[in-house]
Amino acid sequence: MIKVGIIGATGYAGQQLASIIYTHPEADITFLCSNSYAGQSFSDVYPHYKGILDNTLISADEAMAQMSHIDVLFTALPHATAFLFVSKAIENNVKVVDLGADFRLDDVETFETWYNCKHDATHLLDQAVYGLSELWMDQMKDANLIANPGCYTTASILAMAPALSSNIINKDTIIIDAKSGVTGAGRKPDVSLLLTECSETIKAYGIANHRHTPEIEQELSKVSDADVYINFTPHLVPMQRGILATCYASMTEDLSLDEVYKIYKDFYKDAPFVRVREDNLETRFTRFTNYCDISLRIDPRTKRIIITSTLDNLVKGAAGQAVQNMNIIFGLDQTLGLTMLPK
Amino acid sequence: MIKVGIIGATGYAGQQLASIIYTHPEADITFLCSNSYAGQSFSDVYPHYKGILDNTLISADEAMAQMSHIDVLFTALPHATAFLFVSKAIENNVKVVDLGADFRLDDVETFETWYNCKHDATHLLDQAVYGLSELWMDQMKDANLIANPGCYTTASILAMAPALSSNIINKDTIIIDAKSGVTGAGRKPDVSLLLTECSETIKAYGIANHRHTPEIEQELSKVSDADVYINFTPHLVPMQRGILATCYASMTEDLSLDEVYKIYKDFYKDAPFVRVREDNLETRFTRFTNYCDISLRIDPRTKRIIITSTLDNLVKGAAGQAVQNMNIIFGLDQTLGLTMLPK
Amino acid sequence: MIKVGIIGATGYAGQQLASIIYTHPEADITFLCSNSYAGQSFSDVYPHYKGILDNTLISADEAMAQMSHIDVLFTALPHATAFLFVSKAIENNVKVVDLGADFRLDDVETFETWYNCKHDATHLLDQAVYGLSELWMDQMKDANLIANPGCYTTASILAMAPALSSNIINKDTIIIDAKSGVTGAGRKPDVSLLLTECSETIKAYGIANHRHTPEIEQELSKVSDADVYINFTPHLVPMQRGILATCYASMTEDLSLDEVYKIYKDFYKDAPFVRVREDNLETRFTRFTNYCDISLRIDPRTKRIIITSTLDNLVKGAAGQAVQNMNIIFGLDQTLGLTMLPK
Amino acid sequence: MIKVGIIGATGYAGQQLASIIYTHPEADITFLCSNSYAGQSFSDVYPHYKGILDNTLISADEAMAQMSHIDVLFTALPHATAFLFVSKAIENNVKVVDLGADFRLDDVETFETWYNCKHDATHLLDQAVYGLSELWMDQMKDANLIANPGCYTTASILAMAPALSSNIINKDTIIIDAKSGVTGAGRKPDVSLLLTECSETIKAYGIANHRHTPEIEQELSKVSDADVYINFTPHLVPMQRGILATCYASMTEDLSLDEVYKIYKDFYKDAPFVRVREDNLETRFTRFTNYCDISLRIDPRTKRIIITSTLDNLVKGAAGQAVQNMNIIFGLDQTLGLTMLPK
Repeated sequence: MIKVGIIGATGYAGQQLASIIYTHPEADITFLCSNSYAGQSFSDVYPHYKGILDNTLISADEAMAQMSHIDVLFTALPHATAFLFVSKAIENNVKVVDLGADFRLDDVETFETWYNCKHDATHLLDQAVYGLSELWMDQMKDANLIANPGCYTTASILAMAPALSSNIINKDTIIIDAKSGVTGAGRKPDVSLLLTECSETIKAYGIANHRHTPEIEQELSKVSDADVYINFTPHLVPMQRGILATCYASMTEDLSLDEVYKIYKDFYKDAPFVRVREDNLETRFTRFTNYCDISLRIDPRTKRIIITSTLDNLVKGAAGQAVQNMNIIFGLDQTLGLTMLPK
Repeated sequence: MIKVGIIGATGYAGQQLASIIYTHPEADITFLCSNSYAGQSFSDVYPHYKGILDNTLISADEAMAQMSHIDVLFTALPHATAFLFVSKAIENNVKVVDLGADFRLDDVETFETWYNCKHDATHLLDQAVYGLSELWMDQMKDANLIANPGCYTTASILAMAPALSSNIINKDTIIIDAKSGVTGAGRKPDVSLLLTECSETIKAYGIANHRHTPEIEQELSKVSDADVYINFTPHLVPMQRGILATCYASMTEDLSLDEVYKIYKDFYKDAPFVRVREDNLETRFTRFTNYCDISLRIDPRTKRIIITSTLDNLVKGAAGQAVQNMNIIFGLDQTLGLTMLPK
Repeated sequence: MIKVGIIGATGYAGQQLASIIYTHPEADITFLCSNSYAGQSFSDVYPHYKGILDNTLISADEAMAQMSHIDVLFTALPHATAFLFVSKAIENNVKVVDLGADFRLDDVETFETWYNCKHDATHLLDQAVYGLSELWMDQMKDANLIANPGCYTTASILAMAPALSSNIINKDTIIIDAKSGVTGAGRKPDVSLLLTECSETIKAYGIANHRHTPEIEQELSKVSDADVYINFTPHLVPMQRGILATCYASMTEDLSLDEVYKIYKDFYKDAPFVRVREDNLETRFTRFTNYCDISLRIDPRTKRIIITSTLDNLVKGAAGQAVQNMNIIFGLDQTLGLTMLPK
Repeated sequence: MIKVGIIGATGYAGQQLASIIYTHPEADITFLCSNSYAGQSFSDVYPHYKGILDNTLISADEAMAQMSHIDVLFTALPHATAFLFVSKAIENNVKVVDLGADFRLDDVETFETWYNCKHDATHLLDQAVYGLSELWMDQMKDANLIANPGCYTTASILAMAPALSSNIINKDTIIIDAKSGVTGAGRKPDVSLLLTECSETIKAYGIANHRHTPEIEQELSKVSDADVYINFTPHLVPMQRGILATCYASMTEDLSLDEVYKIYKDFYKDAPFVRVREDNLETRFTRFTNYCDISLRIDPRTKRIIITSTLDNLVKGAAGQAVQNMNIIFGLDQTLGLTMLPK
C-alpha cells in the first residue's frame, strides 16, 4: 500500500483528496495535516465523515517530522506556502504531487509577476513535471515532483490542445470564457462567498488578469510550438462545483464538424477520463467524477469553432487528477480509485 | 390614465408587466388575458398577489372583443402567436408594444429562416420600430407598434453599440458569451427546467444557432453601418433572474481604458437606465430593476476589449423596457413607474 | 419630512431599512451609520445602489454627534450594542425604533439569562413598547421607544395569538417549528454561512435554547393572560429570505375549520399586512413585502390545529415592520412606503 | 452474481438504483425498464452515464417477458402501478423489492382510503415484509417480497422507534415536522417543481393528510404495541436531496440526555447505517450515502424530547435501502455496494 500524507487536508481540494484516498485500493492515509485545525479530528471539521474519517489532524511541524514515513505527499495549499513541505519531502525521497500553483510555471519571472511574490524553491523547478497526463504522460512517468494543473487550466487546455496541435485554428484568436462553482474560491470566511451574497447572481472577475492565464498559455504554447496568448475570463456561478469552459477560435481551414470530431477522438483515444461527445454539455454530467467532457460546434457563418469542456473543479480539476497522477508515478492503472459515478 | 391590456399575462414577462403597470402612476390595467388560465384569477396563478391583483383572467376571444377599450396593448407571447392580436389592436388605433420576436427583424426571410415559421403580419412590419430607446429614441416617439427587444439582445447591443459606433473595434471579431437565469426559458412544464435538473449545474445551449443572433446582428449592423456577424453563445445559470453578457472584440486603435470609458459615458449620458461603471458587475446589482450596467476592461497583451453588461431579463430585458417604451410613445417621462430598487 | 438616522446601515436589516426609507414619501435619510465601513459610501458596500444611495457612511461617533438633527433613530445592531445610541436619542427627544433584542423582554433577568450579558439601559425599559402593532396598537401610538419584534417571533406570535386569545387551544401544547432563509443569520464572514457550506442542505439549530423563545413566550403569555411555555425550533434553509413557521397545538373544543378561520379573520380585520388565507403557504408569496400570511388546518384524527405563517424576515420580520412602526408613532397611515409587491 | 431487473429505471429512485447496482460487487444489471423512454439508452435520459451505463431501456412488455432471467426485481413506480410486475416476478420465483407504496400497508382498507385507489394484488400482501431492517431484520431474511419503506417514513420511524419501544415518551404526543429536497417529488414536468417556482422558497404541503402518515403510524404502532396517531407535516425545501425530520414528543419520565442517548445507541448498536450523534444534524452530512443520522435534545422547561434525523431520500430513503434489503434477502453482508461517502 502507498502511504499518503496530505498537507492542507481541510481545504476543499484537500478534503476531496482525503475522501478519494480513503477508498483507494492501493493507498492509505498516513497523516492529514491542517495547521488551522490541528488537534481536532477531520470529522469535526467535516462532520459528514463521522465514524469514517475520524483521524486527528496534525500540525505543520508534526507533518514535517513524519515526512520520512510516507511514500507520497500531496500539498493542497495557497500559492507560495508549499515550498518547505515540498523541499523536505523531496529530500526524503518522498514523491510529491503539489495541487498548488508553485511548480506549474516553468519561468520563475512569470510566476513572480503574476503571483506577486517570490519563489522560494527554484532549485526544484527543474524536476517538476506539469501533470496533465493526457498531454505529457511520457515525461510524467518517472517524475518525483508533479505540478498538478489548475482547475480552469485543465478544462481549458484539454479543450484547446487537439485543435492547436493539429493546426486547424489560428492560435492568436483564442478566447476562453470559463464558469466555475463556488468551491473554486476555497473555504474561507469571506463575505463575498456567503450564500446571501453569491447565490442568485453571476459575476465575471479577474478579467484580463487571472492567474490561470499564463499557465494556460504556457501549455498551449508547448502544444503549438509557438507563443500563444489568449483571453481568459472566469465567472463565479451560484453552484457548489463544476467548471464549464466555452472556448472560441477562428478556423484555419474549412473542415466539417465530423472531421474535427475525428481529430479530437483520435487525440484522446487513450485518455480514459476524457469523453469527447456530441451533445450539449452540462457541468453536472461530470459532477463528483474525474471526467473531462468535451463537445464541439462550428459556426459556418463566422468560421469559428466553439469548443465547450466541463469537469468537476475539485476532482479532475484538483484531487482526482492528483490521484490519477499518483497512480501514474507509482506505475498503477491510472483509473485506480477514480471510478466514482456522476450524481 | 392609460388603459392597458396585456396578452400572455401569466408568463413570466406578462406577470412582471402586470406588476409594474399595477404600480404605474399613469396607467391602469383594463384586462389581463391568458388563454390557458382564462376564468381563474391572476392571484390563483400567482398567489403572491392575493388581495392585490385578483383580476379575472380573460380568454383570447374576450381580449379581441375588448380591444377598443384600451389605449395600449402589450403582447407577451411565444413567437408567431401575436399576429392576430397586434393586427386587431392596430386596426383599433390601439398602440402596441410586442414583447415577442415577431416584429423585431426587418427582413421577413431572416425571420422565417431563424424562427422556422411563416410571418402572418408582414403588412405591419413597416410601421414596427425596434424599441431600444437608448439607440432609436427619435424613431420611436411617434411609433404605434414597438418591437420590444429580446433580453439577451438588449444586454448585447447596449454593450457593443458605443464601441462599434465609434469605430474603436473590429466589427468582425465580436464574440458574445451570455449567461441567463432560468426565467429566461419561460414558465413551461419541461423536465429540463426542474430544480432537480437545472440547479447545481451550468450549460451552454443554442451554440451558433440561437435566435437572438440575427437580432443582435441587425441592430449592430445599423449602428456600424456595415454587415456585422457575431458569435453568440447563451448559457443557462442556476438562478432565477439576470443576464450577464461577456463581450469580446479586437481594438482597432491603442486607446486607454479611460478614453473608452469616456466614449461609453458620453454615449449613454441621456440614458437614465444605463449605468456605465468601473467595478466588476454582478447580475444581482440590477435585479428587479430596469437598469443595464456596463463595465469595461482592456487586455493590453491581446489588444482586446472585454465589455460586460448585466440586466434583469424580465425587467430591462422584457417588461420594464416595455413600460419604458410605453412611456416614450405616450410622451411621458421614460422612468415613470420604473424606479424599482435592486434587491 | 421625517428626518431619519440609521445605525447599523450595512447589515441586512439596516440595508433593507435604508432602501425602504429612500422610497418613503414622508421620510428622508439624514445619516447612515456603519462603524465598520465608515468613510466608504453605502453603494461601495452595496454596489446595487450605485447612483441611487451613494451616501457616505458615518462612524458611531459622528452619529452620536448628529443625534439632535433627526426625528427618528433606527438601530439595527447585535444585542447589547445599541444601549448608548438609544439613550442618547431619547435624551434628545428623538424617537427610537430598535430592531435589536435589547428592549423586547420586559424582565431584565430573562434578558440577561438568555442573552448571557448585562443590560446597560434598564432605565429605558419602562418606556419601551413591544412593537407588534397587530396586537398592541393602542399602547404603541404614543411611544418614544419601540422594541421592534424579532423575525421568528413576529411569524410565531401572529400565527398563535388569535387561537390563544380565543381559548380554542391548550396553551401547554404549543410547538413552533420554524424555517428561515440565510439572511436571518446576518452578514458576517462565517464559514458555516458560505454558499459552499449551507446550500443543498437544511439544518436545525438552537434546539430548545434559541433566544427568540422567551420573546415568543412573553407575548403569548400576555395574549393568553397566563404563563405560556413553548417548544421553538429554528432551521436554516438554503434560500436568501423568508420565514415559514409551522405551529402545532391541541384544540380545546371541536370547532370546524370555517369557525377557526372566522376567528382569525375577525382578529386581523384591521391589520392591512396580515393575509389570512386558505391555500398552502410559500415564503415566496410574501417575499420583499411587509405581509405576514397565515393559513389554518385541523387534523380531526389528533384534534390538533396546524397553523402556518410566512413573512419576509428582512421586511415584516425587521425593516418593514420598523417603518410600519415609525408610521404609527408619527401618526401616519401605517402602510405608507410599504406597498412593495412580492417578487 | 445476482441478476437484477429494474422497473421504472428513469425515475430518480430507479436511476439511483441503477447507479448503485452498477458498482455492486455481487450484482449485475440484466435489464433496465422504462416504458416512457423504451428504445432509448439510459445515458440518453441521464447523459451523466455516457460511456458507463449505455444500456437500452426496455418496455414493460419486454420486461414481463424477461422476468424469468433475473434473480431479483426492483420496482420503482408510482403507487398502484407495480402490481402486475410484482405478481409476475413472484410467480417466477424472482425475489422482489418494491420501492413503491403498494405493499407497505398491512391493511387493504387503509391503503385504499389514503391512496384513493383499489389494491389489485391483495393475495401478495401476506408475504410482503416491511423492509426496515433496523427493526425487522429477522422477519426479512426469508422474505420473497420486500416492501421498501418510504423516504419520510424511514427518517421518522428510525427517529422515534427507540423512544417508543422503551416507553420514555407519551405515544399520543408525537409530532413530526419533516423537510425534503425536491427529488422527493419525482421527475415530472410539473410547473410547481421548476427551479423558477421552487427555489428561493419553502412550503408546507399535505398538512394532516400526507400518505406517509398511516405508514409511520403502522410501524410505530407495531413498535409500541398500541395504536399510535401522529401529526406529520412535510415541507419542500429548495435543494435536490435530503430529508430532515424534526420530531417532538412529551417524555414520560425525567431522564437525562445521556440516559436517552444510551437507549438510542443500544438500540442501533448492530445497525451499520444509523449514526446516533451528539452534534446538530445537517442533511448534507448524509448526502449520497446510506446513513441515517439521529441526534437528541431534551427541553427541561417543557419536558419534551426533540429528536432530529436526516438521510438522503434517494439512498437510505429509497434505492440504497432497497439494495441493503437485497443484500439481506440474499444472505450477503448488508453493507455490500453501499459504502458511498458523503459529498
